[in-house]
Amino acid sequence: MLKAVFFDIDDTLYDTSGFARLARKAALNVMIDAGLPLSREEAYRLLREIIAEKGSNYDKHFNVLTERVLGEEKPLLIALGMITYHNVKFALLRPFPNTISTLIHLKGKGYRLGAISNGITIKQWEKLIRLGIHHFFDEVVTSEEVNSEKPDIEIFREALRRMGCRPERSVMVGNKFTEDILGAINAGMSAILVNSELSDDERDRIKREGLDVTVVQEIGEIREIL
Amino acid sequence: MLKAVFFDIDDTLYDTSGFARLARKAALNVMIDAGLPLSREEAYRLLREIIAEKGSNYDKHFNVLTERVLGEEKPLLIALGMITYHNVKFALLRPFPNTISTLIHLKGKGYRLGAISNGITIKQWEKLIRLGIHHFFDEVVTSEEVNSEKPDIEIFREALRRMGCRPERSVMVGNKFTEDILGAINAGMSAILVNSELSDDERDRIKREGLDVTVVQEIGEIREIL
Repeated sequence: MLKAVFFDIDDTLYDTSGFARLARKAALNVMIDAGLPLSREEAYRLLREIIAEKGSNYDKHFNVLTERVLGEEKPLLIALGMITYHNVKFALLRPFPNTISTLIHLKGKGYRLGAISNGITIKQWEKLIRLGIHHFFDEVVTSEEVNSEKPDIEIFREALRRMGCRPERSVMVGNKFTEDILGAINAGMSAILVNSELSDDERDRIKREGLDVTVVQEIGEIREIL
Repeated sequence: MLKAVFFDIDDTLYDTSGFARLARKAALNVMIDAGLPLSREEAYRLLREIIAEKGSNYDKHFNVLTERVLGEEKPLLIALGMITYHNVKFALLRPFPNTISTLIHLKGKGYRLGAISNGITIKQWEKLIRLGIHHFFDEVVTSEEVNSEKPDIEIFREALRRMGCRPERSVMVGNKFTEDILGAINAGMSAILVNSELSDDERDRIKREGLDVTVVQEIGEIREIL
């Protein structure tokens, strides 16, 4: 009988937010050295505002930054920022500690593995490849392909359909309570929350509704559960 | 009195075509190893057809390739191809021999330096930065910014205007006879053709019309002319 574990990618399998923060700060430092007239703190604050406003998948944050500060786009500064951002991000990229040993453990136990991610298909595959873990995954399902985003039930159903697996035989592992955990549970799966603290409201809700969710501090603890 | 030398970028300052060919072949090898059912020769022939059809600035050549061969886009193969292409291209990237010493020579002689390129602004700046030569250029003018492509006179006029330089005090260096050489001459500049063989027709035309163009085999020879 098939049994499957699905993983969210960003901030579940690797430290997206931490790497992005370091890469953005490095990019801003290079832009400041090349003439962007802001302090490091001002630059980072403004960039975060722009990212919040435009969304993290927008690909022209640095264009907007130079335009807001200097009244026009500055190609040299933009290109310096983009090169530095990508170089630093790719140089740092690695899975969270214990991720690979956990994936090996699950394969050894006979689980099929999938990824369910809100994001752009090729970019999500690129992350798995650059992290060196794409061979572990039997299916990778993205919101772009399915035209449905977590926590919508549709993206979970499509992942289960592709894997040929029933929801009650499947577990979703993710760091976001609403998107990953509630989404999976609504689709009939059980769930494991990692890298995240529960709020009091969320804790109450789990107890009140009897939700099938386990909370672990880090991904390696999954080896003791599954 | 200001005097200026303008350079084309691709195949003038570095071996775009050679690096792209190596990077594409490396990408296809990785895609074939991961299951693309073509021989290396078939794959390269098909990719070149797609590039000819879609243009070299189109960013989904590998998507089209997998779709044509397998009936649908294959994100794993596409992402493997894109990562390999970029890694190989950036690893190989360097200016043609004698480029940097020529730029230093021209700066020492008091020339202002510019680039005039048909291409996407940020990508052309990215190339100059990754080549390590962006500090040499006082102005970089792209067809995307100016909304005019070489050999149109407009892009040359805009470059001269930004540089504050008269055409008769300016030289254009490039590898394409029509785009770089005729374009510059029509704008009133003189021209130097590098990395290119003249056809008999072109040679006749230069003589018949008395065009102010010098042909050199490699960029380093410019040190003997200017």
